Amino acid sequence: MSARVLLPWTDIDVPEGIGAACYDGVGAPPADLGDVEFYVLPYDRGPEPPQLIKELPSLRVVQSLSAGVETLVPLLPGGVRLANGRGLHDLSVAEHALALIHAAQRDLPRWFAQQTRGEWVREHTRSLADSRVLLVGYGSIGQAIERQLVAAEAVVTRVASRPRPAEDVRGVEELPDLLPGADIVVLILPDTPATRGLIGPDELAALPDDALLINVGRGTAIDTDALVTETRTGRLRAGLDVVDPEPLPADHPLWTVPGVVVTPHIAGGSASFYPRAKKLVAEQLRRYVQGEDLLNLVEI
Amino acid sequence: MSARVLLPWTDIDVPEGIGAACYDGVGAPPADLGDVEFYVLPYDRGPEPPQLIKELPSLRVVQSLSAGVETLVPLLPGGVRLANGRGLHDLSVAEHALALIHAAQRDLPRWFAQQTRGEWVREHTRSLADSRVLLVGYGSIGQAIERQLVAAEAVVTRVASRPRPAEDVRGVEELPDLLPGADIVVLILPDTPATRGLIGPDELAALPDDALLINVGRGTAIDTDALVTETRTGRLRAGLDVVDPEPLPADHPLWTVPGVVVTPHIAGGSASFYPRAKKLVAEQLRRYVQGEDLLNLVEI
Repeated sequence: MSARVLLPWTDIDVPEGIGAACYDGVGAPPADLGDVEFYVLPYDRGPEPPQLIKELPSLRVVQSLSAGVETLVPLLPGGVRLANGRGLHDLSVAEHALALIHAAQRDLPRWFAQQTRGEWVREHTRSLADSRVLLVGYGSIGQAIERQLVAAEAVVTRVASRPRPAEDVRGVEELPDLLPGADIVVLILPDTPATRGLIGPDELAALPDDALLINVGRGTAIDTDALVTETRTGRLRAGLDVVDPEPLPADHPLWTVPGVVVTPHIAGGSASFYPRAKKLVAEQLRRYVQGEDLLNLVEI
Repeated sequence: MSARVLLPWTDIDVPEGIGAACYDGVGAPPADLGDVEFYVLPYDRGPEPPQLIKELPSLRVVQSLSAGVETLVPLLPGGVRLANGRGLHDLSVAEHALALIHAAQRDLPRWFAQQTRGEWVREHTRSLADSRVLLVGYGSIGQAIERQLVAAEAVVTRVASRPRPAEDVRGVEELPDLLPGADIVVLILPDTPATRGLIGPDELAALPDDALLINVGRGTAIDTDALVTETRTGRLRAGLDVVDPEPLPADHPLWTVPGVVVTPHIAGGSASFYPRAKKLVAEQLRRYVQGEDLLNLVEI
């Protein structure tokens, strides 16, 4: 009767039949958490919140708001179920990919630099419209990116780890043939043995002059040294939210290559995530209280 | 038999029956232009190219690549027809509007500044998804912007000078009611007596805290002094490709307001314009040679 949910937010309707406590992952957790059955982990708050899992004796469910939950599995006591945040970040990541593309094609770093000097000097830029985009990774994020690219009248070719002819998705083994025809390559790949180093010196060399490489998946998909070599000469350009290594050391050459934009792995963490996350959590709590199957359960 | 077209590019197929000369608006025009009947004005090259109109004794057609041609009309000799570049810039302007929105919502100026210091510091940002966007100006550019906003899952309300209920377009007289519910306002209005100063102190005051004002139409739609006042306090943000006055003087306060991004009226001039412009010119020349009606003719 005294079951409680531990939530990272206070502004969420909790169904009747369960109480609520709040832990945002920044301050200290509340005392007396012996009756917490359902723990919604604060998102992107470092290693402390997951450690709390071990201190909740009544725990039945852990709800992560991340898509990847590999690091949580070893922390789970027997019988505790784990649900992930699949899909919550899709749109956030997709729009950051678009932000990086627009920044590069429309020369935003140049205009921002001119602004600091009060300088009104005009020049025509590249564009996204009519660009040939190779979208490498065609899951739900890739599909969200594609919808925005198509609305901007870019020409998209779909690529994934395995070909899916029914969806017009080519396999990565066709990359050598596809790269020479790409103005922009967008990578949205997970970190797996198969994707590590997928874009190495040969793949970069296959791209046409002035091509733009965008990475919002995992940094390991690109051979960083090879990328530095090909961008330093000005032959290729890049917009990277993920890099290898992360964090990128302050003295890493990638920071200072002209034509390369680096953002610090922030694609997934934007405001659009919160309404989606709160909606999922409200639905999960309703299902929990009513004894229905939970969404997004992870096989452990 | 010796009729010629004067073109700004050399890489365009000219139909049989007419010769071609090239003038890009930067160097000097070719000598001996007595047989030029069709003059395609170089785009965005200042006041010199239009002056050449008066020195072409055989001239029959002037093709501008701009949408607005008011300044050309007084230069036209009697009997010379004028065609404009309506639609050629729509997508270029629309994608720059998206670039400015993404830059503001995803804090691009912050990350670019961090990059110059080799600094990997992460923070969550605003987003475009789920934002409530007031699109003020609903012609072909507004519609191109809307398609991209909808693909990004923003929530769009259409506004134009006159209401068009059948298209769910509200009139500008409803702005006082609509502004308080807008996270982002995008202005794509021409410069007319009715649009000048449309967004003044009262309209800015009606916007909620942290709202973003984007202008890719004409700078005169916004009262610049009022905008400086409301952005200086940090209450509102702005992304402006057009300003009043233009060019913005080097010592103008707008350059240095945090949360305000200024680009120097470059929305229309991106690469996507060229294929569209060349396609229009090729079609116009075909029509001219075959004696068919030209497209985009302007009533003089």
